Amino acid sequence: MIDYFMNEALNEAKKALILKEVPVGTVIVKNDEIIARAHNLRETLNDPTAHAEILAIRKASEKLQSWRLNECSLYVTLEPCPMCAGAIVQARIGKVYIGTFDDKAGACGSVINVLQNDSFNHWVDIKWVYNEECSRILVDFFKNKRRVAVKNEKHKTK
Amino acid sequence: MIDYFMNEALNEAKKALILKEVPVGTVIVKNDEIIARAHNLRETLNDPTAHAEILAIRKASEKLQSWRLNECSLYVTLEPCPMCAGAIVQARIGKVYIGTFDDKAGACGSVINVLQNDSFNHWVDIKWVYNEECSRILVDFFKNKRRVAVKNEKHKTK
Repeated sequence: MIDYFMNEALNEAKKALILKEVPVGTVIVKNDEIIARAHNLRETLNDPTAHAEILAIRKASEKLQSWRLNECSLYVTLEPCPMCAGAIVQARIGKVYIGTFDDKAGACGSVINVLQNDSFNHWVDIKWVYNEECSRILVDFFKNKRRVAVKNEKHKTK
Repeated sequence: MIDYFMNEALNEAKKALILKEVPVGTVIVKNDEIIARAHNLRETLNDPTAHAEILAIRKASEKLQSWRLNECSLYVTLEPCPMCAGAIVQARIGKVYIGTFDDKAGACGSVINVLQNDSFNHWVDIKWVYNEECSRILVDFFKNKRRVAVKNEKHKTK
């Protein structure tokens, strides 16, 4: 089931890719059923909070008519940033499955750990999935972005 | 001007109080003008992300049609939590004025510091305002909440 749900999160990341967004996707699961799914829409919506996790948490809360998502698990292709990790704590999500780590902004252990801090009022179980495709889709996205930037730069200096 | 804008943030917190929400308010300022204002609406909207700062950042981004709020300052009555501090970093907000600290969940120095971490790609200037009313409105809110809880408990055991 873990691979299935991570693959569904990856399908969300692919939707972000089509929109030229940083390809990150999330699904939220309750009782083995996906109750919310989302992908990064920061550029499309011009909204700095429109990361996949925030959008999915808002959808799940709307569906359950509650801000408490205690019995839910969140699957995400990339380690959440501080904002998203903070939202996971706010929503009291029990377990987070992470497809790949983010050594630049990861807030689930890579840079800081917001999900597991005794000072906060909620502790989240972290499961590292290490899905190769979750990582590759991001590496390819940024490689391609740099390639386009270099091409544009060369074109300008001609 | 700092006192004026913090007072406007406090007016937002008072709107939250009327709705029985934890009284926290925010205004976002650009070129000495308030471009967005919001108060905590977590219970009203059943949305764990509906803190004052998140709602105000989303409004400001919509107004400016950009997720980059570099030239903006944010005034907030209570020290932002990790989610909101993370959103401030995501939005590239330059300066944050804070009315009172939060020793339980503050992510601007009290528990962790998300706004000033060399690993992240943005550093936020923090200005502590120490406004007594920003603190008192929260202390009174929780005191009253406990009083009501005790009263209800006594009523149940009669």
